[in-house]
Amino acid sequence: MPNGGELDFWFSIGSTYTYLTVSRLHRLEESEGVRFRWRPFSARAIMQEMDNIPFATKPIKLAYMWRDLERRASLHRLPIKVPAPYPLKEFDLANRVAIVGQTEGWCAAYVRAAYRRWFVDGEQAGSEPNLSESLAEAGQDPARVIALAKSEVIRLAYAAATEEARRLKIFGVPTFVTGGEIFWGDDRLEDALAWHVGR
Amino acid sequence: MPNGGELDFWFSIGSTYTYLTVSRLHRLEESEGVRFRWRPFSARAIMQEMDNIPFATKPIKLAYMWRDLERRASLHRLPIKVPAPYPLKEFDLANRVAIVGQTEGWCAAYVRAAYRRWFVDGEQAGSEPNLSESLAEAGQDPARVIALAKSEVIRLAYAAATEEARRLKIFGVPTFVTGGEIFWGDDRLEDALAWHVGR
Repeated sequence: MPNGGELDFWFSIGSTYTYLTVSRLHRLEESEGVRFRWRPFSARAIMQEMDNIPFATKPIKLAYMWRDLERRASLHRLPIKVPAPYPLKEFDLANRVAIVGQTEGWCAAYVRAAYRRWFVDGEQAGSEPNLSESLAEAGQDPARVIALAKSEVIRLAYAAATEEARRLKIFGVPTFVTGGEIFWGDDRLEDALAWHVGR
Repeated sequence: MPNGGELDFWFSIGSTYTYLTVSRLHRLEESEGVRFRWRPFSARAIMQEMDNIPFATKPIKLAYMWRDLERRASLHRLPIKVPAPYPLKEFDLANRVAIVGQTEGWCAAYVRAAYRRWFVDGEQAGSEPNLSESLAEAGQDPARVIALAKSEVIRLAYAAATEEARRLKIFGVPTFVTGGEIFWGDDRLEDALAWHVGR
């Protein structure tokens, strides 16, 4: 098994389809016996560099995305209320908090909670009350974590993760990386898993 | 069953992922007991209007697309040689010939043959020798069909099909339409089928 049994899950809070992924990874870890390594970074920075604008200037594609997301959530038996607030106002803060979570071990719990509040309760991830409530749900003191997330050391760690994603030729999220292959999109999660376990 | 049992398959020869779809629809018709109605149109016209440029200006995404396509072909046990010539020089002619095929009943045979020559033999669809050979394989006289494809009546039928796609809010290909729902992408074909047969 590549990567010592772990499958890298690269994501940015702010991507809509990533709601599906973060809400079902724990089920897949149980049913498939794999472990995902959560890797937050700035997909927005990379997409802006590539002039990759999936929805902001494309209203017909945006409307389709919400309907497709609603149908896919239903397929995976996940609750959803669409359209959710979009795009996020505090994209970078949401992800810098995830970087703190990654270094301290509560990243998945925070991100899953933040997405649930965003896509079920209609509260933007990265903004209040979502931010503090999701941190509390992950067992963390919001004031401590938010201050740390705004620090220079976390800014650098976030930039380094983004640079690593750039080097891996990641261009969107969610992206799964295993054995030198990259798989883009929640709808490639099963393909990535099959590749990871040797098909 | 909506649409009298038929599921609309909207496509443009020129889309790369459409290779997967045209090569496996006949299997699905047998195994699922459904009928697809092949609807050629100009996805390029609509995408240009929307400033939707998936690959031409995005080399990293383009490279990913070829690898993803290769993996998906393998998943569906389809032969493929990537990268195939891209983009097509004679995009519109390839699709106007498909319009003739639609009115005369040999559209699927021609499109499947044209894609096989493009993605397995490396010959561009819409150009020679692919065009005449694919028409001959579909049992048609190339000279007659190509002259007809260039006629005003077929130009108008192609424009009308594109206008119908625009009205349906189609923004890319392949797209499947059934029961008022649109499903974009070869990777949504199974979702479209499930929706079509009532899940």
